[in-house]
Amino acid sequence: MKVAERWFEEYEIGESRTTVGRTITEADIVLHAGQTGDFFPHHLDAEWMATQPAGQRIAHGTLILSVAVGMTAGDINPRSMSYGYDRIRFIKPVFIGDTITVTAAVTGKSDHKRTPETHGYVHEQVSVTNQRAETVLVLTHLYLVDKRGPA
Amino acid sequence: MKVAERWFEEYEIGESRTTVGRTITEADIVLHAGQTGDFFPHHLDAEWMATQPAGQRIAHGTLILSVAVGMTAGDINPRSMSYGYDRIRFIKPVFIGDTITVTAAVTGKSDHKRTPETHGYVHEQVSVTNQRAETVLVLTHLYLVDKRGPA
Amino acid sequence: MKVAERWFEEYEIGESRTTVGRTITEADIVLHAGQTGDFFPHHLDAEWMATQPAGQRIAHGTLILSVAVGMTAGDINPRSMSYGYDRIRFIKPVFIGDTITVTAAVTGKSDHKRTPETHGYVHEQVSVTNQRAETVLVLTHLYLVDKRGPA
Amino acid sequence: MKVAERWFEEYEIGESRTTVGRTITEADIVLHAGQTGDFFPHHLDAEWMATQPAGQRIAHGTLILSVAVGMTAGDINPRSMSYGYDRIRFIKPVFIGDTITVTAAVTGKSDHKRTPETHGYVHEQVSVTNQRAETVLVLTHLYLVDKRGPA
Amino acid sequence: MKVAERWFEEYEIGESRTTVGRTITEADIVLHAGQTGDFFPHHLDAEWMATQPAGQRIAHGTLILSVAVGMTAGDINPRSMSYGYDRIRFIKPVFIGDTITVTAAVTGKSDHKRTPETHGYVHEQVSVTNQRAETVLVLTHLYLVDKRGPA
Amino acid sequence: MKVAERWFEEYEIGESRTTVGRTITEADIVLHAGQTGDFFPHHLDAEWMATQPAGQRIAHGTLILSVAVGMTAGDINPRSMSYGYDRIRFIKPVFIGDTITVTAAVTGKSDHKRTPETHGYVHEQVSVTNQRAETVLVLTHLYLVDKRGPA
Repeated sequence: MKVAERWFEEYEIGESRTTVGRTITEADIVLHAGQTGDFFPHHLDAEWMATQPAGQRIAHGTLILSVAVGMTAGDINPRSMSYGYDRIRFIKPVFIGDTITVTAAVTGKSDHKRTPETHGYVHEQVSVTNQRAETVLVLTHLYLVDKRGPA
Repeated sequence: MKVAERWFEEYEIGESRTTVGRTITEADIVLHAGQTGDFFPHHLDAEWMATQPAGQRIAHGTLILSVAVGMTAGDINPRSMSYGYDRIRFIKPVFIGDTITVTAAVTGKSDHKRTPETHGYVHEQVSVTNQRAETVLVLTHLYLVDKRGPA
Repeated sequence: MKVAERWFEEYEIGESRTTVGRTITEADIVLHAGQTGDFFPHHLDAEWMATQPAGQRIAHGTLILSVAVGMTAGDINPRSMSYGYDRIRFIKPVFIGDTITVTAAVTGKSDHKRTPETHGYVHEQVSVTNQRAETVLVLTHLYLVDKRGPA
Repeated sequence: MKVAERWFEEYEIGESRTTVGRTITEADIVLHAGQTGDFFPHHLDAEWMATQPAGQRIAHGTLILSVAVGMTAGDINPRSMSYGYDRIRFIKPVFIGDTITVTAAVTGKSDHKRTPETHGYVHEQVSVTNQRAETVLVLTHLYLVDKRGPA
Repeated sequence: MKVAERWFEEYEIGESRTTVGRTITEADIVLHAGQTGDFFPHHLDAEWMATQPAGQRIAHGTLILSVAVGMTAGDINPRSMSYGYDRIRFIKPVFIGDTITVTAAVTGKSDHKRTPETHGYVHEQVSVTNQRAETVLVLTHLYLVDKRGPA
Repeated sequence: MKVAERWFEEYEIGESRTTVGRTITEADIVLHAGQTGDFFPHHLDAEWMATQPAGQRIAHGTLILSVAVGMTAGDINPRSMSYGYDRIRFIKPVFIGDTITVTAAVTGKSDHKRTPETHGYVHEQVSVTNQRAETVLVLTHLYLVDKRGPA
């Protein structure tokens, strides 16, 4: 983890990065239930889930979301801050033992409404894929980034 | 936590519920860094943050998001599943020791595109407030809910 | 989790509630060892336990007790507080992967000794069952509850 | 932690041991909420508790119980197993930052009902004290212990 | 855990102790990644490790080191403090499900350089073995211990 | 975290890197006690430590060691593996709330004994500093690195 300053003008639409993999474990689910207080049987009752269509326990959506966003945390950019997310969609369930990788691609740039001279948004499309190459989660991460401005 | 079946037709726009409070602790941030791998100094370096505008460590956005969504997990509705979130916005930072409460209000209902006879979306606006009555996070939670259909 | 005021007079002997299930995982045992400092090989040494009558690691008694009591935490009743437990008995071991459900039944009511006009005890029999319908733990949970008193 | 075989006949009424201290932290409470699913505001909402008689968050009863019993886990005795607890009473609340020590004293011995020749119960009175020398929790721990039998 | 005072003169070269076993679990690795921030795929990506010579995930070196040293923490000796470690070597990987035991033997004693009259070093050779009797980790633990001095 | 292949010949003596900071919290100590089973009062009993020369609880040596090594985990180098550590010395205690940063400098390179043509050791001196610019821990991290060999 290192500091690397990067201005709005330096992000290019189409640039992309892919993480290494991470296996989602039973322990991750237990810890996420413990952090969030969500002990729904969908995540924690193996017996009942064996009788349901999924056939087994599934990870919390917020677990995969949190881990995936965390996996994209690379260099620290003092010119950028996380502004929000758009269109988070849980496409497929993630099961215990699944291994996810994350691809983040710059898909858009837009001006900040009130201060377009000095700030803009970088739109990063985040896609989470399992070991069967299935997309399990997508979202758009919006960063508010400082503009270097005219030279 | 109990099972309570509820169909699409039974959700009413305007209905709303508010949770009890939960204090966000240093331990929560340490655990969330550990779950996500995001050890950015914004969350974990008290010395450096003392030199920044915020003046102190701030909670991860995904921590507040995960806890807030978890706090809204009430009865188990076998007719409903979490479909995704829209427009997540981090309005204000959450500091160690802040206490959040969550209000969730049904703000919209819409038909499922492919199977409008049998499924619809319930849009729940989730607002997270701190002890100073400041909104810190908003998002729209989309549920895919079974329709009871014509009698 | 919601607040629901309930007075001593409103508890009825024979009323009962049953929770959804929760699978006890290896992670739960590791976390409980870590919380309590009890690293006895009965809970943490799979090799040695394979040579013992149980044949495998068993959950800590205090883990099952804590989880079971936690699973019965329903509505918040401002008129009630936990006073203690009687006759906790560990009937059968709980193994990794076992799924427990909890039934809590009001089996008795009694007056508080010093202030019988204003307080009483509600006795709730807590029974923990595994997926083979075997009772693994029983205890009596005593609540000290405010009396509404004469109208 | 070491193995030390000890038979029923070798326990003496009146013998007693006292542990070193352990400070109960906010992290312990957060972890215990996470393990048990009990996120009651009594334990996790500092703002609300500031308006209540206690004035601050209190530890879960099952946290203090589990930690105290864990603190008494000394040598591993292959002749003894934990049978249950009697009369657990929460005398005073434990607050964040309180330091507890535990005294365990053998207060009784009794025969096993069905196999009095070979087994007996050792009754250990467990008392948990805070740094103000106040007793916060008491319980009787029952061990089922093998008898050495006649020589 | 109890206090037992022991002076430098009372340690004897050749004395040794062996712990009970502890199984290293997936949860231990997840928790250690979370504590250290080391999410390398060697420890957390089961899919990728299946393609590597080891064939499966391996525990962090610092996890085995920390657990092994913790397992040797016996009585509290007010005359001794941990000074450092020498020659830590990771001999073989530890896999999920392996059970380790630790042997600690006093292999040397030496005088403190500046205050040889009052202090000395006790050198304890720590060896960690798995269930296949393979040594997986060795290190020398140096304790700085008070000398009782001349009578 | 990304993969960056680097051969033995490419490491240069004198090169160095410094991490961002991380504040060591009470939660870190509680979690480390839980992972290692080391519940010594030096780390967990605030009351007793207030009567000792240090005046307050101190972090486990293995906690600071594990976190510091984790903080130096940068790019994944498929040509390098962790071989061991030499001369770990705990110079000063780390207290709750201290913020550490880590500097790692290549201080030596040496040939592997049996296969000097293909492997060598890179010696990295790791120094951990607190917010008062005091060195609290030093160690030498040895990496076994593939040689590219003659062109």
